[in-house]
Formats: sequence, C-alpha cells, structure tokens
Amino acid sequence: MGNYHGRDASAARLLTGSHYDTVRNGGKYDGRLGIFVPMACVRELSRQGKRLPYGIEVVAFAEEEGQRYKATFLGSGALTGHFDNAWLDQLDTQGISMRDAMKHAGLCIDDIPKLQRDPARYLGFVEVHIEQGPVLNGQDMPLGIVTSINGSVRYVGEIVGMASHAGTTPMDMRRDAAAAAAELTLYVEQRAASVPDLVGTVGMLEVPNGSINVVPGRCRFSLDIRATTNEVRDACAADVLAELKRICQRRGLHHTLEETMRAAAAPSAPAWQQRWENAVQALGLPLLRMPSGAGHDAMKLHEIMPQAMLFLRGLNAGISHNPLESITNDDAELCVRAFQHLLDQLTSEAS
Amino acid sequence: MGNYHGRDASAARLLTGSHYDTVRNGGKYDGRLGIFVPMACVRELSRQGKRLPYGIEVVAFAEEEGQRYKATFLGSGALTGHFDNAWLDQLDTQGISMRDAMKHAGLCIDDIPKLQRDPARYLGFVEVHIEQGPVLNGQDMPLGIVTSINGSVRYVGEIVGMASHAGTTPMDMRRDAAAAAAELTLYVEQRAASVPDLVGTVGMLEVPNGSINVVPGRCRFSLDIRATTNEVRDACAADVLAELKRICQRRGLHHTLEETMRAAAAPSAPAWQQRWENAVQALGLPLLRMPSGAGHDAMKLHEIMPQAMLFLRGLNAGISHNPLESITNDDAELCVRAFQHLLDQLTSEAS
Repeated sequence: MGNYHGRDASAARLLTGSHYDTVRNGGKYDGRLGIFVPMACVRELSRQGKRLPYGIEVVAFAEEEGQRYKATFLGSGALTGHFDNAWLDQLDTQGISMRDAMKHAGLCIDDIPKLQRDPARYLGFVEVHIEQGPVLNGQDMPLGIVTSINGSVRYVGEIVGMASHAGTTPMDMRRDAAAAAAELTLYVEQRAASVPDLVGTVGMLEVPNGSINVVPGRCRFSLDIRATTNEVRDACAADVLAELKRICQRRGLHHTLEETMRAAAAPSAPAWQQRWENAVQALGLPLLRMPSGAGHDAMKLHEIMPQAMLFLRGLNAGISHNPLESITNDDAELCVRAFQHLLDQLTSEAS
Repeated sequence: MGNYHGRDASAARLLTGSHYDTVRNGGKYDGRLGIFVPMACVRELSRQGKRLPYGIEVVAFAEEEGQRYKATFLGSGALTGHFDNAWLDQLDTQGISMRDAMKHAGLCIDDIPKLQRDPARYLGFVEVHIEQGPVLNGQDMPLGIVTSINGSVRYVGEIVGMASHAGTTPMDMRRDAAAAAAELTLYVEQRAASVPDLVGTVGMLEVPNGSINVVPGRCRFSLDIRATTNEVRDACAADVLAELKRICQRRGLHHTLEETMRAAAAPSAPAWQQRWENAVQALGLPLLRMPSGAGHDAMKLHEIMPQAMLFLRGLNAGISHNPLESITNDDAELCVRAFQHLLDQLTSEAS
C-alpha cells in the first residue's frame, strides 16, 4: 500500500488499486495493471513536484482470486471490515492453515481489524482492470466504461431419471437424464441471449459413469447466471428453475439443485462513472459502456463507498487467467492518461 | 452342451441355447433361461420316451457378454468359426491372459477349431431370451416374437470450442462446446423417435474438467444407434453426423468422431419366426412382434444359418444386468410350452 499525501492531510482521499495475486498459470495484467497505473500517475506527480488538494491511497490487494483457500477478496474484505476470522482455520491442499501461511509471510493477524477503512475519510474508489473478456478487442476499442459489476448466482444440480439399456428401451419409454440436461442447457443459452448484458452458463455437464450403451440415469450440471442488476439476474434464475421443473415433470424425472453462491450487483456510482467517461472522451476515444462479468475488488469496496471501474482491452480475444493474456504499451499509456484526467477532474472539483 | 438324439442320427439337427455367463452384479435369467427352457423340453421328451425325427443340440455358450476380455460371443463365435486366436493374448485387469484363464478352466485351446459347425447339418438356430427391456412388461404380454436383432453403430466424439470466462463472454461471442453437444443430444432423441423401432442414445456426455464459471471449451459424447435394418440405422447415422457438422459450423466449433463398433442387423428367418408365432398363438396369447435392441448369440449363428428368437417378459420394467431382473414361473412355463410347440411343428414338417 502506498499513500500520496495531498496538500491537506486531513482531506478525504481517493482510494484506488487492485489485486497483485493471480490464478495459477495466469497472466501478468489481471490485477496488477490496476496497481501500476495509479503508481505511474503518482510517480509523475512526484516528478512534477505537484501536490493535489486530496490524498491518494494506492492499495495492492492480496488474495482477490482465492486460489489457495476457499475465500476470496481477503485484502479488499479487510478494508471493508468483512474479513472473517473463521477463514484463518482453513487448510490448503498441503494442510497449511491460512493463519500459519499469513504468519509465515510476516503478517500480524491481530492487525487485520486495523485495516478497516472509514468511508467518511474517502472520496470513493476507482479501479483499473484488464477486461478479461472479448468485447473491447472485438470492437477495436482500447478502453471501456464499466456500468456495473454483474450480480451473479450459481447452482449445482443433478437430474435423476432411469438408467436403462440403450438397445432395448424404446424412445418413448425412456427417462433420459442427459436429454433433460441438454434441454436445460439450450434453454439457459436462449434465455440469457434474450436480454442484453445477461449471461447464463452450464459450465459443468456430466453423466457420471456414463456408458455408450446405457440411457443416462443421472446427469450433473452447474448453472452460472450474471446480470447488471439483481432483478434481471433473479428473473432469469426464476425462469431457468421453472423450466428445469417443467422439463423434469414432462419427462418423469427428478432433480436436485443447490445454490452455491450469490453476489449482489455493484452498479457504478454515476458521478464516478461520469468522470471515467469524461476522461475517455478527453482522449478522443469513443465511449463503450459495458458491464463487468467478472468480480473485482471494487465489488467489495462498493459495500462502503462509491466506486467505478475502467477496463483496458485484452488482446487474443481477451483471454485471461492464461499466460496468453496480453495488452499493448499504447493501450497502457492511454489508461494512465485517463487516470490522470480523472485526477485532474477531482482537482478542479476541489478547487 | 447336450445332445438329444433323434430317430435318425444322420438327420439335420435343431441348434438352440443361449449363454450361461452374465455381467457382474447381473440377474439370473439373462442367458440361462435360453438353456433351461430347451433342457426342460428334452427332459420331458425323455420322460415320455419320445424320439423325434431330428436331433436337438442344446448349447450353453460361454462369454457372450465379454466382461473379462475385450471380445464378445466367444462361445457362439467358436461355433461359427469366428473365434479370433489373437484374443488369447488379451490380459484381464489382473494381468491374466485369456489363454491362461481357459487352460486354468480345463479347456483345450487346440480344440476350439473343432467346435465349428457345418450349417448343412442343422435345421436352424432358435434362442429363447428374457427381453431385457420394458416392452412386454409395459403391454402385459408374456411372450414376444423377435423380428430382427437390431443392427447397431457406435461412435465416440468430442466437440471443441473455446473455453472462456462465464462472466465476461457475451452470449453472442461464445463457442460453447456443451451447448453444441446439447443440441446434438436432442437431435438424436428426436430423429430416433421419428421412426418405429429405431433407437438413438447419447450415453456418455461430459465437459472434461468443467468449471462452474467457465464456458465449456470441450465436450465429449458417445452415440449409439440401432435399427431393425442396416439401412434404417445408416440413414439415421448419416443424418446425425450431418447435423453434428451443421451445429459445429453454425457455432464455429470443431469436432472429432470415431466409429467404435458396427454390427449388422440379423433379421429373423421368416419360416422360423412363423414357427414362434404359431407356437404363441397356439397358447392363446396375442402376438407382439418386436426387434431385439440387445445383441444375442443368435446374431452370431445368423452368420451361418437361419435363426429366430422368442422373448420372455422381464418384470420390474424389464430391468436386466441387475439383480432385480425377474420373471414369473407362469411365464417360464408358457415359454417351455411355446418351445414344445415349435418342436411339434418341426416333427409335423419332417413327417
């Protein structure tokens, strides 16, 4: 964490940053870009000997991804006062507790509560991040304005029919769990495609111990539904669950379904989104507003202060969580200049 | 194997029987019923001191199912001269070769070629078998006339798209392998249902290492298509393969497909099917003609002589390859009486 002190140390600060952890075999930019861009801006301010009327706090968050333990947003969660001490007893795959791992890294666990920020002391939170998706790359645009971090809901389920002989069971006497899951998969795809910025995914699909000559008696699946608002997400989830019920009733099947995750949408604060839009337009770039399908530290900060994000285009169709993740230097410079413009706007507003 | 000698030892014989092996954790009737029914008939002939004008050879075939080694119809294949000596070197899961297993069971491998039958010395082959499907049970009929042992073809394949972030990849920019496999699954179901006695199954369906939050980049599947004639089977397979190609082209995906098995349909010899029909009608039972979706030893004998099968109803919705496989004593008796009637018909024809 680095602090840039403004002219008035008691003035509310701008909070910014992103995460420095990434996934195993991940890319270089996911997270770190959002730390380096404000660092470059602060370095430039120092070079020029400039003092702004407000301070800047650049935070490099730990464990946004939650790869080692079953907990995400450890760093940003600590800032919002949502670090759950029960996490400390979790063990990684080698049996090392989070508590021991943190001690080994030289961290003082008793200090975690001291990280909690008082929102009254901050102007708001901004985060720059690589898009991790194909939209900007596909439209040949370097920067994108995030309108909302999507709300999401996840389920895992199983459809249960009757395993039977693939040769001797006539088509009209089957209770085929995989065919039902296939119907559900296509319904999810069609329902999500019917609303802009809504996405629905059946990412896991499996007939357990399936045999080439056995009508599937069971089929496991997962559901992941995300939308810019909780209402759009919930309407889609309700339709998908109703369709699952209808499919199973029509085919004489049973099903189980377990909700495994639910995260509220984090719409950008209008005034902060407007500042990013002003910055992008000042660079002579067209505006592209888009939701963030992925979660980000800004989602956590959203719980206590206004936030807005700026996306930078990823090359290679936006591939991320992959060493192929890539950006250009020119795009990175545009990102820095947009951030500088946002700082300038805050200066004008303060004066 | 047991021989019933007719009045004239040189007269052509009736060949009958079924297999005495079954699958692991299987039922009691699959196979053995077709050995016991003719044995009961022969015992009755002996009790009555009757000599028919033809002999009867009752064969208990080994290894119809092919559970221990990757080869099926070992016994019936030996009778048709199709025992492949290369099978002898196959190892089971414990590393025991088929050769050693046969020697350990007291069998003389050099004698296998001597088992080959000369079709000129046989009237034909009949086989009684439990249905292993739900049709007779569903229609409350004890006996069914087999019109044909279905021809089948099997494939395993994989659809390859692009794994991508389930949150950040808009619906119209996805290359979802599972959604494509879902389309294929429903097409197979609908195409097979459009023709009587045709069945099509996607028994294996799996997104390898699927994640709840990743758009499936790969999906593995299997296809099993069976029909009463090779032509109907091949027309369905051609349509399914064309649809797979269309789906992949439309969605920008690739696919692989490997044919793993192809077996010709074995239609019942009309004269022999007629004898079973006469027998069933003589018992005052309604006629139900049906294909056999499963393979049977009769399929092998079909290669060298006329054959026809009679099915006996299985209880519990026809469940088979399962300890729940069940029949009634009354049904078994009807089966024996039908077989006796068939023997009587052959006697009349010979006189």
